[in-house]
Amino acid sequence: MSNHVHQTDVAIIGAGPVGLFAIFECGMLRMRCHVVDALEVIGGQCSALYPEKPIYDIPGYPKILAQDLVDQLQNQAAPFEPVYHLDQQVTAVTDGADGRWHLETAKGTRIDAAVVVIAGGVGAFGPNRPPLAGIERFEGRGVQYLVKRREDFRDKRVIIAGGGDSAVDWALSLAELASSLAVVHRRAKFRAVPDSAAKLQSLAEEGVIELVVPYQLAAIEGDGNVLGAVIVKDLDGQTRRLPADVLLPFFGLSQKLGPIADWGLDLERNHIAVDPATFCTGRRGLFAIGDIVTYPGKLKLILTGFAEAAAAAHAAHPIVFPGEALHFEYSTTKGIPSA
Amino acid sequence: MSNHVHQTDVAIIGAGPVGLFAIFECGMLRMRCHVVDALEVIGGQCSALYPEKPIYDIPGYPKILAQDLVDQLQNQAAPFEPVYHLDQQVTAVTDGADGRWHLETAKGTRIDAAVVVIAGGVGAFGPNRPPLAGIERFEGRGVQYLVKRREDFRDKRVIIAGGGDSAVDWALSLAELASSLAVVHRRAKFRAVPDSAAKLQSLAEEGVIELVVPYQLAAIEGDGNVLGAVIVKDLDGQTRRLPADVLLPFFGLSQKLGPIADWGLDLERNHIAVDPATFCTGRRGLFAIGDIVTYPGKLKLILTGFAEAAAAAHAAHPIVFPGEALHFEYSTTKGIPSA
Repeated sequence: MSNHVHQTDVAIIGAGPVGLFAIFECGMLRMRCHVVDALEVIGGQCSALYPEKPIYDIPGYPKILAQDLVDQLQNQAAPFEPVYHLDQQVTAVTDGADGRWHLETAKGTRIDAAVVVIAGGVGAFGPNRPPLAGIERFEGRGVQYLVKRREDFRDKRVIIAGGGDSAVDWALSLAELASSLAVVHRRAKFRAVPDSAAKLQSLAEEGVIELVVPYQLAAIEGDGNVLGAVIVKDLDGQTRRLPADVLLPFFGLSQKLGPIADWGLDLERNHIAVDPATFCTGRRGLFAIGDIVTYPGKLKLILTGFAEAAAAAHAAHPIVFPGEALHFEYSTTKGIPSA
Repeated sequence: MSNHVHQTDVAIIGAGPVGLFAIFECGMLRMRCHVVDALEVIGGQCSALYPEKPIYDIPGYPKILAQDLVDQLQNQAAPFEPVYHLDQQVTAVTDGADGRWHLETAKGTRIDAAVVVIAGGVGAFGPNRPPLAGIERFEGRGVQYLVKRREDFRDKRVIIAGGGDSAVDWALSLAELASSLAVVHRRAKFRAVPDSAAKLQSLAEEGVIELVVPYQLAAIEGDGNVLGAVIVKDLDGQTRRLPADVLLPFFGLSQKLGPIADWGLDLERNHIAVDPATFCTGRRGLFAIGDIVTYPGKLKLILTGFAEAAAAAHAAHPIVFPGEALHFEYSTTKGIPSA
């Protein structure tokens, strides 16, 4: 572990869309940021789970792909020269006698900041793994829990498991590309938007895809570590063997706060309670924004997190620059401050 | 006046960016909107005052021109088929015994709605007019209070009056196009961003523009109704005659709430006090969002108004659809509802 401690105005925990916009809002108020994220990439869930999914409710974008939004937010933050520390969870956040905050990550990075902004989304998250013996062996070698690039599925034999929106939406989307596509679900009925469920049924009737229902996953087979087939069984234990290049299990996400739960914050059902006027957690200089917070009327929308980022930056300003009046100006008047 | 009364779920007062996004958010919750604005165009101040000005703090847009933002928001709202009633101020908002709200406009349009959302910006606004005899005669014929299209000023003799950011910014911008440009200000010092004021001084020293200081406007002359010259005087009453095709007085905006002040709302310094959890004004079914509202921590940012629009739409839903549970879904899951 290096002895070097990064000194900064603001330490942001979480490099998802809301954390990225917090860099911009802090920058507009001349506060510089270091940003830590447990993922290897910038963008949070948007980049890690659904980069090619369209989002329809970003104001001013009738439609934008998740990764494109992340790219735009990263560009918008770039003039303020944020320092990213990726692929490392923050393990400790402590306040020093000097009134500053000290962060440490799983990789030993140490950051000393006047203010901390937690933009941790749902916390550490990951796919729910189906309980199949030896499945870890095939992960990344045929078993995938998310779709990063549709093109990866062209001319492949694809099995989708699950009955919710993700399973149905991706079945509709990948049916065009896959050489064959089967959807395995333990019920005949799908828990998806009615219009999409009806489309799925039509594709099955046309013979484009196969609905393997009611069946559930029983085992996976492969040659060495490469997936070869998925074994499914019905309610009576009868099995079928489905040859496959790819298995996509969509059984939801497990979410957990991770180390954040141990930082002595006021938690309500795994969310951090904040003052909605300032987004302060109750501890001076420790703010929280985005999906991880709760307050009366809270909506878990990216656009709501953007407004929270602006409010937290303004509330942080007097802590970073005590005694300095904040001359609030519109971006249209002066543009962004020179970096 | 027609006897027809428009029936709708939501009546939105104000078609600026925040009012436009409220249409989208209401639409996502299957509530349809009628929108009233005093201006002839959609977009509020963005379209009426500074359509070509860049905005830097819309999340996901490192830079966007004000009119482009308005166009995007209008496109985003379009699938929900809003009905716009432009060029007419709302004169009366009353709640009926039936629990619905009744609106009437200066043109006699009548709207009956379950919910009203006031997104009135700064209220009715207009330029402060310099006290020059007969100036009305030249308005639109040489005297303009805002710049809609820079190209209109190419090869013109332009006089800018004022000493604030608008005067200085437009002087810097139009100096490239105008055949001559003079800035009239009653002081030698300009109240603008230091960097811009310094640029103005440089242009004057290079002879590109003329600073007519300390002078103020005394009179305007013209041939018929077409501007020909601006007469200015110094502190001793000495006059100069400046030949001119265009006079741009930038003496700020007058803002007034207008009829909204008479609707019995809880006002704090000309702003409407709202509950930040719901954006309700305190009267059931009457909401307010955007620059016209105040609450602890309120920031007058467009992006903040967007989040307020989402929150108000969610709070309005149980009033529009009593007893119907709101199934909150992400736009990524189902896209926008079919219109």
